[in-house]
Amino acid sequence: MHPTPADRFSFGLWTVGWQARDPFGDATRPPLDVVEAVHRLAERGAWGLTFHDDDLIPFGADTATRDRQIARLRGALDETGTTVPMITTNLFTHPVFKDGGFTSNDRSVRRFALRKVLRNIDLAAELGARTFVLWGGREGSEYDSAKDVRAALDRYREAMDLLCGYVLDQGVDLRFALEPKPNEPRGDILLPTVGHALAFIERLAHPELVGVNPEVGHEQMAGLNFVHGIAQALWAGKLFHIDLNGQRGIKYDQDLVFGHGDLLNAFALVDLLETAGYDGPRHFDYKPSRTEDMAGVWDSASANMRTYLLLRERAAAFRADPEVQEARRYAGVDALSEPTLAPGESLADLRAEELDPDRAGERGYGFVRLHQLALEHLAGARLMAR
Amino acid sequence: MHPTPADRFSFGLWTVGWQARDPFGDATRPPLDVVEAVHRLAERGAWGLTFHDDDLIPFGADTATRDRQIARLRGALDETGTTVPMITTNLFTHPVFKDGGFTSNDRSVRRFALRKVLRNIDLAAELGARTFVLWGGREGSEYDSAKDVRAALDRYREAMDLLCGYVLDQGVDLRFALEPKPNEPRGDILLPTVGHALAFIERLAHPELVGVNPEVGHEQMAGLNFVHGIAQALWAGKLFHIDLNGQRGIKYDQDLVFGHGDLLNAFALVDLLETAGYDGPRHFDYKPSRTEDMAGVWDSASANMRTYLLLRERAAAFRADPEVQEARRYAGVDALSEPTLAPGESLADLRAEELDPDRAGERGYGFVRLHQLALEHLAGARLMAR
Amino acid sequence: MHPTPADRFSFGLWTVGWQARDPFGDATRPPLDVVEAVHRLAERGAWGLTFHDDDLIPFGADTATRDRQIARLRGALDETGTTVPMITTNLFTHPVFKDGGFTSNDRSVRRFALRKVLRNIDLAAELGARTFVLWGGREGSEYDSAKDVRAALDRYREAMDLLCGYVLDQGVDLRFALEPKPNEPRGDILLPTVGHALAFIERLAHPELVGVNPEVGHEQMAGLNFVHGIAQALWAGKLFHIDLNGQRGIKYDQDLVFGHGDLLNAFALVDLLETAGYDGPRHFDYKPSRTEDMAGVWDSASANMRTYLLLRERAAAFRADPEVQEARRYAGVDALSEPTLAPGESLADLRAEELDPDRAGERGYGFVRLHQLALEHLAGARLMAR
Amino acid sequence: MHPTPADRFSFGLWTVGWQARDPFGDATRPPLDVVEAVHRLAERGAWGLTFHDDDLIPFGADTATRDRQIARLRGALDETGTTVPMITTNLFTHPVFKDGGFTSNDRSVRRFALRKVLRNIDLAAELGARTFVLWGGREGSEYDSAKDVRAALDRYREAMDLLCGYVLDQGVDLRFALEPKPNEPRGDILLPTVGHALAFIERLAHPELVGVNPEVGHEQMAGLNFVHGIAQALWAGKLFHIDLNGQRGIKYDQDLVFGHGDLLNAFALVDLLETAGYDGPRHFDYKPSRTEDMAGVWDSASANMRTYLLLRERAAAFRADPEVQEARRYAGVDALSEPTLAPGESLADLRAEELDPDRAGERGYGFVRLHQLALEHLAGARLMAR
Repeated sequence: MHPTPADRFSFGLWTVGWQARDPFGDATRPPLDVVEAVHRLAERGAWGLTFHDDDLIPFGADTATRDRQIARLRGALDETGTTVPMITTNLFTHPVFKDGGFTSNDRSVRRFALRKVLRNIDLAAELGARTFVLWGGREGSEYDSAKDVRAALDRYREAMDLLCGYVLDQGVDLRFALEPKPNEPRGDILLPTVGHALAFIERLAHPELVGVNPEVGHEQMAGLNFVHGIAQALWAGKLFHIDLNGQRGIKYDQDLVFGHGDLLNAFALVDLLETAGYDGPRHFDYKPSRTEDMAGVWDSASANMRTYLLLRERAAAFRADPEVQEARRYAGVDALSEPTLAPGESLADLRAEELDPDRAGERGYGFVRLHQLALEHLAGARLMAR
Repeated sequence: MHPTPADRFSFGLWTVGWQARDPFGDATRPPLDVVEAVHRLAERGAWGLTFHDDDLIPFGADTATRDRQIARLRGALDETGTTVPMITTNLFTHPVFKDGGFTSNDRSVRRFALRKVLRNIDLAAELGARTFVLWGGREGSEYDSAKDVRAALDRYREAMDLLCGYVLDQGVDLRFALEPKPNEPRGDILLPTVGHALAFIERLAHPELVGVNPEVGHEQMAGLNFVHGIAQALWAGKLFHIDLNGQRGIKYDQDLVFGHGDLLNAFALVDLLETAGYDGPRHFDYKPSRTEDMAGVWDSASANMRTYLLLRERAAAFRADPEVQEARRYAGVDALSEPTLAPGESLADLRAEELDPDRAGERGYGFVRLHQLALEHLAGARLMAR
Repeated sequence: MHPTPADRFSFGLWTVGWQARDPFGDATRPPLDVVEAVHRLAERGAWGLTFHDDDLIPFGADTATRDRQIARLRGALDETGTTVPMITTNLFTHPVFKDGGFTSNDRSVRRFALRKVLRNIDLAAELGARTFVLWGGREGSEYDSAKDVRAALDRYREAMDLLCGYVLDQGVDLRFALEPKPNEPRGDILLPTVGHALAFIERLAHPELVGVNPEVGHEQMAGLNFVHGIAQALWAGKLFHIDLNGQRGIKYDQDLVFGHGDLLNAFALVDLLETAGYDGPRHFDYKPSRTEDMAGVWDSASANMRTYLLLRERAAAFRADPEVQEARRYAGVDALSEPTLAPGESLADLRAEELDPDRAGERGYGFVRLHQLALEHLAGARLMAR
Repeated sequence: MHPTPADRFSFGLWTVGWQARDPFGDATRPPLDVVEAVHRLAERGAWGLTFHDDDLIPFGADTATRDRQIARLRGALDETGTTVPMITTNLFTHPVFKDGGFTSNDRSVRRFALRKVLRNIDLAAELGARTFVLWGGREGSEYDSAKDVRAALDRYREAMDLLCGYVLDQGVDLRFALEPKPNEPRGDILLPTVGHALAFIERLAHPELVGVNPEVGHEQMAGLNFVHGIAQALWAGKLFHIDLNGQRGIKYDQDLVFGHGDLLNAFALVDLLETAGYDGPRHFDYKPSRTEDMAGVWDSASANMRTYLLLRERAAAFRADPEVQEARRYAGVDALSEPTLAPGESLADLRAEELDPDRAGERGYGFVRLHQLALEHLAGARLMAR
């Protein structure tokens, strides 16, 4: 179970680099230099590094600083063979964004936000990133009287249409991925779930350029089934990127290691990603707990990848088990792929048919048995039995 | 504050008719006959009655029973001038639907569900209903291994495409409204929020025929801001119907009286509905608490309408208050309607502009003061001051 | 992994006997006779059967029916060697309890509830049950104006004091266990968590006779860590009984199979129960999903026991692993058992000591590594490595 | 509606002084000096100021700085007539507390925490504070394997016993109030709710010295009814202090203005506090939103007090309304105060009585009507009607 670049594991620079400042506590760890981050991650088998502009280049830095940081990053990438599959922009830390970026009630802020993103798209193109993530964490409100949501969606759309237009104009091979989140740091964030983001995309001028970047914990903060959300995103052809981490239910954003939350759902997620043809990065967007020192940070980075590989192995064994296959047939899992109407059948044909509902209602589906098989495979209990 | 038909208040027959059977308790009230329901609601100022097929006509009833019940309903409607603005189909009570209707793993059940809905569309047409609601409460799963969600969405789409085709073929003036819910009675329900439903609709053959019927409590069961969800539905042109009720946070589906939950959000909702041009029914989908007898049922029906009218009055006073108008300007609420780019402005023009972010970040928005004004208007405190 | 009576697994008669009627659906399964239940459970390795009065004897049945049912139960117990470790009373199904039993606003109902419980205590004594569970699922309210909570707690205490007095008078060897739940079927239930129940018990006339019966899903419905709640109950000497099942986060009461929810927490729970000296029943209070027929019911009963045994094995291996032991030492897990003050040390001594907080704050705890070891043990990955 | 010192409104120095640094954003406001805070609050009608040691005196400051800050505070208190009713200690910001204070796995940290609290108790005595609040926000864990909860409760008890002993030894007139919170900043915090804290207190050496300081938002983060929790604390004689603020459901800790959350519950809370004989401070522990500048901060401080006074007025009118009184009688609200057994009545007497449960179950309670009256009083609709 040693990760390799073929596994396409990537990490945000802000993850291992998080200094562990939280709403009630000061930093517990020193800053992490990008060059060290790249080397340490590569040693552990990671394939890619991602970052916000401000992670690499301090907000407001002069051009010399900017160029130096980019050059240092490039050097580390070259030395290690690490890629930059995704870049994103920070529109949330600086006070100027306190009411949002693209949807701030202050037009001058909206304009500033656009400039900041455009500049970072240039950097993405320069570094060969293929995905540009936008997490609108400050786009929202605490008070219903304070934000005209329909106007905010107009401005959000305006921003996305401008950015898509820019990418098309520049001929850059880059797609956007919107990252939904229901709340925190705003009381209510716009586009709070995968569903809301998918619906929004359909109203854009260039929907083909925009998809989603769902994060495990963000959907779970709304009590939603992450696997269902990913399935709907895949169904819509819109899973452009994914943020893997762990969350223990509806509470503040925990950003735990992948699997250190709802483990059964993580098992089903890996099974889905590995069988549905998703070939994008397996990106970890987590935070090493505030109790950890730098040794703990690197252990936690490895833990993400180990869990993924372990679940991948368990899911494959689950699929291959003849008893599982029989239980899936009994449960009708695959029968759902058969169209409800037969080829050439009309509604009139359908209506001529009869069913005894009481009789049909007696059928058992065996879902509990099938799920218990999943649990036992996850626990490695059925591997060992053989 | 007496409701009149001009207020377009409608009630589900299953609301006042709920016998108060819950997962841990038997019925506490007798059955309610449809004729009495129509008369009692009309006396209290209601405008419309809605129902599931099985509310009016017992599941599996013969044609004579069916015709008699329809005739009795028609008589009551005529006597009272009540309309039937919406009809819906029960695909959840009978055991045959235990794994869903349109997305059951059992194809024969999917076919049966389609037949049941088609028959009810005929009834909707007969009674002149303009909206056909579909709540897929059993479309979902408890176990990730038990349901292929992508296949389920294929079947859901197949069903919707068939139904839209039928309505077009028949030339019926009827639109569909999908009602999202995150869970209960299934562990996870497909199309769990307004966002997911809106996104799904865009993948249909006839998206123009399909909108949403959001319910206050359903979105709040996912911790989502109902006003934000309604605003996004309006923004997408998809608010075809609405279910008003009350819910106290993330827990089981409470179906309380409208306003008997998050009252500040209800205030903002009425403000939005009344100012955004929504002209559909104000439909109450609630349950009179199990502690109430029939007198309490009718009191609770009136309470829904009284709350709505009261909030409508308070919201109008809020809008009209000069101090509120000043606070909204200070907060930039209306400034968000101004496009971020000026007419004719290019991205190059935008990028040439500069902003001092530290300076711009010092601005206060006065959101708390504005919200306090809303609270005081809701509490009738500013009306009385004058 | 075959359960035996030595494992002390018990089941509620209402669990395997649940006919799968839910708030939106009719029963999907036939009634289950108590004699068959006892035999089927015993065959699968269960040790005990528990029940509400009304599970065995229909509400309001005459004495002959009552006696016959008790005799039939006794026969089945004798034939199978099954015990009745716990009995409980149904104060929630009948309409008379719609505002509660012990705390109904109607005094005649409170008196009726007391009589019903007293009669069932007699039955408990007759059958040799040692624990009497009280789940006050209807003790609560939907509306803050409707219930004087302090008066309700007075009545709750009055009832418990009367029941304890009765047990002492009768010389019955029986202890009470209160079962907390935050909501459903009431909007808010009194004594909503393990903590509230423990605190209430301290105000009773005979606190030594009363403990708690926590249920996995009930605490998780409030987003609380079940293992923490059980640890506090054990710490207080009050874990008299336990209800094992599964729940997927904050939503309606799911009553899934044990482990079919938060699996990592279930792993930690079994580890705690097995190492903390808890020697009471391992009682499953779950509901076989509504999609299952009777074959599925029995599979689900076995699944509860299989999961427990599997987790017990995994937890023991976790404890025994030298790398885990080293990681626990590094994390200071055992060091927490050392008193903060040394024997004989005074506060003045303590205050004379100094610590460099910045230096001390640099320490890492290695919690993530330790938790990853737990996850890998749960997944059977470290067993197989050896 | 102008607050006066007689209203006993107090504010934490950390509330108006919050610089609005959040997990995703930098400070948006300048530091606030304590002298200015006292003057501004007093001008607005506040009666008391509370603080953590580190709010007034920077962590690790030398004695001269400490003395100067205390002197400056004293001066401002004298100039304005402001009191210091409560003091608390910060055991959460500095990295040394990353695994907790009293229950850190590191014994040297536990000892350091005790010293920090003892020193602050001396300051409390010096300033005449009567309540010492302890919020154990870092006492908890993210991982079940990382914390032995029973050992942690032992250490928590040890710390409380030592502190109570110290206060008794010193003859200081000071009581402790534990502040529960379910999570954030730890994944799970020990003593997560009012109930858990009340239960813990009963196991202390000096329970009479220790009560609770419940916070609106903290209980609501667990989906619990705050009014129920306060009622149980009052019932136990343990409501030593209270933290008023607003929260919109189960999510991160919002610390909104009092009333800017669940307004109906806030109405019931004020009604309870004003009628149950609570005579402690009305303490606001909130955070002015990050979007506000200093003018907004002072507006938000006033908003807390205005809402409280408004709700107090509305609740009094509700109580005085004859129709409400009639509805309460109908609902049996007061009848719950009557003991279930009559004076001198035995259980045998009780058991001789009979009730027809079907008949008794027909009674309606009129709870919905009563709650609607509460809503209409809250909305000022019934005041104006007269």
